[in-house]
Amino acid sequence: MALIVQKFGGTSVGDPEKIKNVAKRVLKKKNEGNQMVVVLSAMSGETNRLTEFALAMQDMPDLREMDVLLSSGEQVTISLFAMAVKALGDDCISFLGDQVKIETDNSYTKARIEGIDSDRITKELDSGKVVVVAGFQGVTETGDITTLGRGGSDTTAVALAAALEADACEIFTDVEGVYTTDPNICDNAIKIDRITYDEMLELASLGAKVLDIRSVTFAKQYNVPVHVRSTFTETEGTWVVAEEKAMEGKIVSGVTYNKNEARITISGVPDQPGIASKIFTPISNADIIVDMIIQNQDTGNGETDMTFTVARTDYQRTLQLLESVVKQTGAKGGIHGSDSITKISIVGVGMRNHSGIASTMFSVLSNEGINISMISTSEIKVSCIIEERYTELAVRALHDAFELGKESVPEEETLS
Amino acid sequence: MALIVQKFGGTSVGDPEKIKNVAKRVLKKKNEGNQMVVVLSAMSGETNRLTEFALAMQDMPDLREMDVLLSSGEQVTISLFAMAVKALGDDCISFLGDQVKIETDNSYTKARIEGIDSDRITKELDSGKVVVVAGFQGVTETGDITTLGRGGSDTTAVALAAALEADACEIFTDVEGVYTTDPNICDNAIKIDRITYDEMLELASLGAKVLDIRSVTFAKQYNVPVHVRSTFTETEGTWVVAEEKAMEGKIVSGVTYNKNEARITISGVPDQPGIASKIFTPISNADIIVDMIIQNQDTGNGETDMTFTVARTDYQRTLQLLESVVKQTGAKGGIHGSDSITKISIVGVGMRNHSGIASTMFSVLSNEGINISMISTSEIKVSCIIEERYTELAVRALHDAFELGKESVPEEETLS
Repeated sequence: MALIVQKFGGTSVGDPEKIKNVAKRVLKKKNEGNQMVVVLSAMSGETNRLTEFALAMQDMPDLREMDVLLSSGEQVTISLFAMAVKALGDDCISFLGDQVKIETDNSYTKARIEGIDSDRITKELDSGKVVVVAGFQGVTETGDITTLGRGGSDTTAVALAAALEADACEIFTDVEGVYTTDPNICDNAIKIDRITYDEMLELASLGAKVLDIRSVTFAKQYNVPVHVRSTFTETEGTWVVAEEKAMEGKIVSGVTYNKNEARITISGVPDQPGIASKIFTPISNADIIVDMIIQNQDTGNGETDMTFTVARTDYQRTLQLLESVVKQTGAKGGIHGSDSITKISIVGVGMRNHSGIASTMFSVLSNEGINISMISTSEIKVSCIIEERYTELAVRALHDAFELGKESVPEEETLS
Repeated sequence: MALIVQKFGGTSVGDPEKIKNVAKRVLKKKNEGNQMVVVLSAMSGETNRLTEFALAMQDMPDLREMDVLLSSGEQVTISLFAMAVKALGDDCISFLGDQVKIETDNSYTKARIEGIDSDRITKELDSGKVVVVAGFQGVTETGDITTLGRGGSDTTAVALAAALEADACEIFTDVEGVYTTDPNICDNAIKIDRITYDEMLELASLGAKVLDIRSVTFAKQYNVPVHVRSTFTETEGTWVVAEEKAMEGKIVSGVTYNKNEARITISGVPDQPGIASKIFTPISNADIIVDMIIQNQDTGNGETDMTFTVARTDYQRTLQLLESVVKQTGAKGGIHGSDSITKISIVGVGMRNHSGIASTMFSVLSNEGINISMISTSEIKVSCIIEERYTELAVRALHDAFELGKESVPEEETLS
């Protein structure tokens, strides 16, 4: 008998009829001989409805009270789900975050899970019940309600699977799994059957929105196999798992892109110790997150350029902040930038053992006449900043070059 | 500095604008130098919305899950209220039933409060905050959510006032207080300034719906002064308090009526030990509540009549149940009944020390040509069953006879 955690998002439980369908699906799996723990989000639209109420009260709603407000959403779906299971003749019990002690720190609206007391869940599972748990919410040591932020229900599911030592954690969503690239751009993008936690982390942080990044970190830490699949079909989705020997044959797993960044260059900066700190401290103090940073080698004139990216929504604010920095540092070249860029990346654990992957990527882009303005690499990914208008062209070219659209593993010699 | 508990019902917090008004009203009282604890219901309409969801899931929704579902309603209003107070520049913190350990038994949907842990509330009050608590909900010893049933927020407020040894508990509603009778029937009905717990209990159970009866029991037990008043005006309402010397001058405090009953007579019953049990056991087993019961004296032929009242909605079902009882007991006279009756009552603590009140009531009704079919009395009330069509006539006649419409205390001699 396996223990399986299944998580369904807001669109899967958007109305009473959909909740009934989810109940049927869960019971089918139970009747195959499994113990079932279900994690639900609030009905789609509910979070927005409640947020509007909050904004009618306070321009910047109090964070603790916001969490009390928002956590009411899952309370509705889990109780309705339990009723639906009972109406189908089986037994079910619902639990809120605080009832199974999903203990978090006290960072309201973006809390981190610190522990789960799984005793009551285990007891109810052993008595034959389906257990349904509210996603997205937790409780502090002092009994205050917290929420985990957007996508937090994925994390609840994986954390529960870890605490219960579940055999699998299935995340049901509105896509069939993780694809080699955006199917809207490449017709021949294919669903990836198995992907490593590390690859998924790179894909998640680079813009593929199927799975919340924190849940992948959790899954990796506790070695929870995660199955991302569609609520609306029965087909297998993508398994996110620990690295396996067989995966090494595949060098590049996917091509991904992110259009939400902007690039800023501050040039002619005196190449002195402490210069980076002078530039980035005011940005960090303004709670602006910097992604890529590149500092060019001093070419002999005692000056350097500093280029970095920020979220596109922070672009104008960052430019303003830097005006005084330019004066302070005496940067002769001033500030340049663009908010019409894309970060395009290739990801794959196989890269570790293969040279020439980055250069292949550069050649492919160059052959299409696409200029690269920044490069950043990690063990298992290469990212390039290009002009936004080339995004689709670049994605298709890379997807083809690394033969991701075909079922077979690409031959090594064609790549390097 | 006084400690005051204020409770606002669903219509008072029906939308964001109304919640803001309640926040202003509470802060006004706080700024007069009081510590404030606020108890809120769910927004009006919310309970119905959630109940419809539940009925879409299960014909008879599971009671435990129903309480998880319904308790989400107050969670929304208390968090929004806390935001509203903060937006007005003061400080506030919200608590759910389980966060201040409003401990109840485990009778889901109609739980009884068994204890409250007021430590955290006291701490927050002492730090200068307004404390807002979710009405209607509690938690069992095992951490399961319960609700107290319709009107339960009144009980939450009074129980909190008792636990905190508050100076007063103010119940805000859509009427200005408790009246000498229904103002829709008597133009000259007047608001009662002060009434005893016992009188209020009789009035509440007889049909005056301003205050939930369980909250009055609680208030009496812990001697909490309760102030019933309007959300929409500043005028003083009705104080429900322990009996005071001054109250004895007033003999009858109010005239009330209940049209929701039906009368059933089973006649020609053999007058034997155990006959009452044979009649009422099947009724009780069917969860039908019997209100008044009258057994006539055996007039010599070894037979008796048994007359009683049930809720009008249970009338047909009770008649059906009694068919087999008639056969078993050999009741010769069969069953008679009416579901177009009214129970009309006069209530007042002064009755204890005054004779002749009941006979005055009978004369008044008789003078109007109204026949009395059943009579029931307690220390502080007299109830008569009459035909429903005479209700308004009887109410006006009694209200006038006991001079309730005038400000002055009635002269004793005019009554007896």
